[in-house]
Amino acid sequence: MEKAMKIKPSLPKGMRDFLPQDVAKRSYIMDTIRDVFYLFGFQPIETPVMENLSTLTGKYGEEGDKLLFKVLNSGDFLSKVDESALNDKNSSALTKSIAEKGLRYDLTVPLARYVVQHQNDITFPFKRYHIAPVWRADRPQKGRYREFYQCDADIIGSSSLYNEVELLQLYAAVFKRLGLQVNIRYNNRKVLLGFMHAIGLEEGRELQGITILDKLDKIGIDKLKLELQELGLTDSQLDLFASVIQTNDLSLLPSSPILDQGIEELDFLIKAEVKNTSFDLSLARGLDYYTGGIFEVLSTEYDMGSLGGGGRYDKLTEMFGKSDLTGVGISFGLDRIYDVMEGLNRFPAQVHAVPVVMFAYFSEANQAFAFKAVQACREAGLAAEMYPDLVKFPKQMKYANDKCIPYVAIIGDKEMEMQAYTLKDMQTGEQTTFSLKDLIDHLQAKP
Amino acid sequence: MEKAMKIKPSLPKGMRDFLPQDVAKRSYIMDTIRDVFYLFGFQPIETPVMENLSTLTGKYGEEGDKLLFKVLNSGDFLSKVDESALNDKNSSALTKSIAEKGLRYDLTVPLARYVVQHQNDITFPFKRYHIAPVWRADRPQKGRYREFYQCDADIIGSSSLYNEVELLQLYAAVFKRLGLQVNIRYNNRKVLLGFMHAIGLEEGRELQGITILDKLDKIGIDKLKLELQELGLTDSQLDLFASVIQTNDLSLLPSSPILDQGIEELDFLIKAEVKNTSFDLSLARGLDYYTGGIFEVLSTEYDMGSLGGGGRYDKLTEMFGKSDLTGVGISFGLDRIYDVMEGLNRFPAQVHAVPVVMFAYFSEANQAFAFKAVQACREAGLAAEMYPDLVKFPKQMKYANDKCIPYVAIIGDKEMEMQAYTLKDMQTGEQTTFSLKDLIDHLQAKP
Repeated sequence: MEKAMKIKPSLPKGMRDFLPQDVAKRSYIMDTIRDVFYLFGFQPIETPVMENLSTLTGKYGEEGDKLLFKVLNSGDFLSKVDESALNDKNSSALTKSIAEKGLRYDLTVPLARYVVQHQNDITFPFKRYHIAPVWRADRPQKGRYREFYQCDADIIGSSSLYNEVELLQLYAAVFKRLGLQVNIRYNNRKVLLGFMHAIGLEEGRELQGITILDKLDKIGIDKLKLELQELGLTDSQLDLFASVIQTNDLSLLPSSPILDQGIEELDFLIKAEVKNTSFDLSLARGLDYYTGGIFEVLSTEYDMGSLGGGGRYDKLTEMFGKSDLTGVGISFGLDRIYDVMEGLNRFPAQVHAVPVVMFAYFSEANQAFAFKAVQACREAGLAAEMYPDLVKFPKQMKYANDKCIPYVAIIGDKEMEMQAYTLKDMQTGEQTTFSLKDLIDHLQAKP
Repeated sequence: MEKAMKIKPSLPKGMRDFLPQDVAKRSYIMDTIRDVFYLFGFQPIETPVMENLSTLTGKYGEEGDKLLFKVLNSGDFLSKVDESALNDKNSSALTKSIAEKGLRYDLTVPLARYVVQHQNDITFPFKRYHIAPVWRADRPQKGRYREFYQCDADIIGSSSLYNEVELLQLYAAVFKRLGLQVNIRYNNRKVLLGFMHAIGLEEGRELQGITILDKLDKIGIDKLKLELQELGLTDSQLDLFASVIQTNDLSLLPSSPILDQGIEELDFLIKAEVKNTSFDLSLARGLDYYTGGIFEVLSTEYDMGSLGGGGRYDKLTEMFGKSDLTGVGISFGLDRIYDVMEGLNRFPAQVHAVPVVMFAYFSEANQAFAFKAVQACREAGLAAEMYPDLVKFPKQMKYANDKCIPYVAIIGDKEMEMQAYTLKDMQTGEQTTFSLKDLIDHLQAKP
């Protein structure tokens, strides 16, 4: 702390501070997710915030590479600089020679690196979860931040469809605990590929078709058909497309190996009859790398984008030299879940991390007496505090009120004489006098 | 995931991955600290990993500025570059024009910024805690990493000495819960200043004296005296110094306003008689900004540096334009506490976040039967899993063993017929057959 130069305090664009009440609510969601991850046998890992740029680049497309936050090399970074990039003032060429590290963009590429790097220390199938922030130098806008949390659970190294069923159950369990009504939609990439083949899209154009299908919710079936027409589909092919989409009836399609395989996988999920899930043939999910089951969670009570999504992928660790691993995983969108909980007023009242009781007093002697009681409460495992400075009583009460502390124990000379405490319920205003032991018992019995 | 170029997976220098068992142990320490913070009325805040460099620079000395990780501006950062710095290849001058953000170096400067920025939304006295990683581009060595966690609790805006007592109690409570024996030493900066005056160090040279005193543990009293002699102290002054240090007896010193004030503050802590704490006049703490009580925690069972430290400071928020706030805080050294716990084998056996029970089976039909039981366990709040793929029984048992799962429920045709489960205790090898309800009851009764 050398200089006392005054600086107006501010934050970088797209970054957020969180006040205690926000942290409490966010922790409530994350703790709920973490508890369910644990219940389902997932274990936590941690990776550093910074990865080598050689690990990160080329994984998220050209646009993604631009959105990576790059960390300047330490020390005299210009000593080993690319001279021609410097002379040309070519920022992107120069970056390579002055920045070797970047902030992680998601938790998936670090997982791939981790699995390959630690493959001898890992028990496969590897059921890992990771709840941590990621960074993207995106243009900030409503609901889009440059620092945000991801909550991911993946199973690496098992092709069993029980994993897919478990992940659907896991979604259902988390949203049930959060008190949110959702529809967990699922589909299968093999089914989609077979479907696209069957309506006449040639090999290599299926992904284009799937990308168009992904827009059904936004643009409707008629515009979808127009876009598919541009890919060269005939009227009867378009009609087949529309009737399958409208009925979810795959038996309308001619059989093919990939379609049959997809239907078999899908049937396993359908038969599992997981609560609040439904098969939806129009669910496509944007990411190219899914190869089997795909999932997406939507609120049925609140207008918001997807609250989570995931699916099976096969090539995750290939880029790091390990090709025989399949994986399946899901992700929770913390910020959106927060917004839905807040919008529907579903956070429990006791979510705030405030002490149960504050001790207020009138004199120095009263304060010393109160302090002993605070210690006794804490030793009994009851969160308690005392206003630290000897200030006027109303100021102490204002503090308790501002901090939303539910009970205040009041100590005056009369209480000291009686070795008693007058407990005020801050919600009802009711006051009762207790001995210390009874006070602690009374407060411990509260929910 | 565009290219399948193979990259050898690696991490940046000084950065660490954590395996599930490490995460579990680290979380155990952090959760213990967090629980006690809550018990004492502290509330969590969060700040972004990145701060503006204008917030961070000039706060940690010249050396500290060099250790800041700087984040390259997004986009065409050379378009607004400092031409002369570019032509001179002056890295440090260039940095200013191509990097506006940096990774936080500690949690204290972000706290100062936060308090000033959100002063109208904060309830003062502000009791906040923050458990989060920080980054320093230090040369990595044993026990020193470039990414590490800090666990800080501070009270901002209260000069009451009850805060100091509470922080000593908080330290005692955390280490008691962790099962570690410690000596929590405390001292007072005003006492030290008065002490340095009293032995003859002039105004402005007291900090030099305190810095020398800080080396007592390392170099011993005789070398300390030699160093003080170089500051111009006479033999009788050095003798006074030595006898006060050896006796902790401040009454040997001539009175002065700052010494008296310091002794008054110190007496409040001494009289509080917090368990496992002791006054130690030789405790100095390196940082310049402490102005009152100072604290440090040492293990009494294991040779390790300080496990935590803190103190009172008065000028924290001054650099951000707010000068009337005093603060007092403590910090826990997570990595060192981890090493002591590990070295003394003090982690509880059940710290690992593994499910209580795994279900193993012999056939596809057995597996379907097992899966229903897994669901029932989870619905009862019992963490459970099933080996997902239909593999040979020994492979399933190896998985349970590698993952340190304490119980395996075995299902064969006989069990299916009886609607029963053979539960194997993986530690004792003992096997008992239960109905599903009894199995769940039995496992829920385990600690």
